[in-house]
Amino acid sequence: MNITKIVETCLYSNDLEASQEFYSDFLGLKMITWEPGRHLFFRCGSGMLLIFNPEHTSRKETEVDDQLIPLHGSRGSGHIAFQAESSMLDEWRRRFDEYGIEIESEVDWPDGGTSIYFRDPSNNSIEIIFGNIWNV
Amino acid sequence: MNITKIVETCLYSNDLEASQEFYSDFLGLKMITWEPGRHLFFRCGSGMLLIFNPEHTSRKETEVDDQLIPLHGSRGSGHIAFQAESSMLDEWRRRFDEYGIEIESEVDWPDGGTSIYFRDPSNNSIEIIFGNIWNV
Repeated sequence: MNITKIVETCLYSNDLEASQEFYSDFLGLKMITWEPGRHLFFRCGSGMLLIFNPEHTSRKETEVDDQLIPLHGSRGSGHIAFQAESSMLDEWRRRFDEYGIEIESEVDWPDGGTSIYFRDPSNNSIEIIFGNIWNV
Repeated sequence: MNITKIVETCLYSNDLEASQEFYSDFLGLKMITWEPGRHLFFRCGSGMLLIFNPEHTSRKETEVDDQLIPLHGSRGSGHIAFQAESSMLDEWRRRFDEYGIEIESEVDWPDGGTSIYFRDPSNNSIEIIFGNIWNV
């Protein structure tokens, strides 16, 4: 009865238009659904990145065929990390430069691999990891 | 230069002891690291579930070899969804009963698959999805 993976990872945003542009255009994720004012869903590998407007999801209950989707929605900076190939590090550095996105920090991990940290338009702390730092 | 997957999914908790018990014992995830007062890391499939104490990570900067790990940390209910096999639904229903964990809602999706929603000790909205509702 094992859990096999995490299939939905969530972030929160009060400006879904800005998030849509950032995650589609700059990060290159494939958008699946956009419900204006409520959510924005992206496919990413074998999982989904769901971006919700907490003003909506923490206050207004949603139902699917009379079945309740529970309330949720946080404020403040969340965090997620994406995986990329180690060989893509320089190309990504150039992409940050090209799009004028500030790299907040770059970390070389003691056992190998590099992380680039930056902010999304809602001030979430986003990381791209180059190399398999978690052995997953 | 594609992003291949989400490798770190985060939740926040002010009671890491309670989170540790819940995610290890009830959900059966494999704990990798526990830094008391700051974080708790679990392996889950080809990714990681990181649970942070936002009182720590939103206020105290962390460094690795003089390199900065940026601040983050949200308040309020976050959300994640785990994947399980469809055939395990009844066994999980019994497990909720056995552990005295309340099922907040159960949703049968129009195109097939079932979700069970419940709360973790920090009031995050957690979902287990039985069946491949996202086609991922």
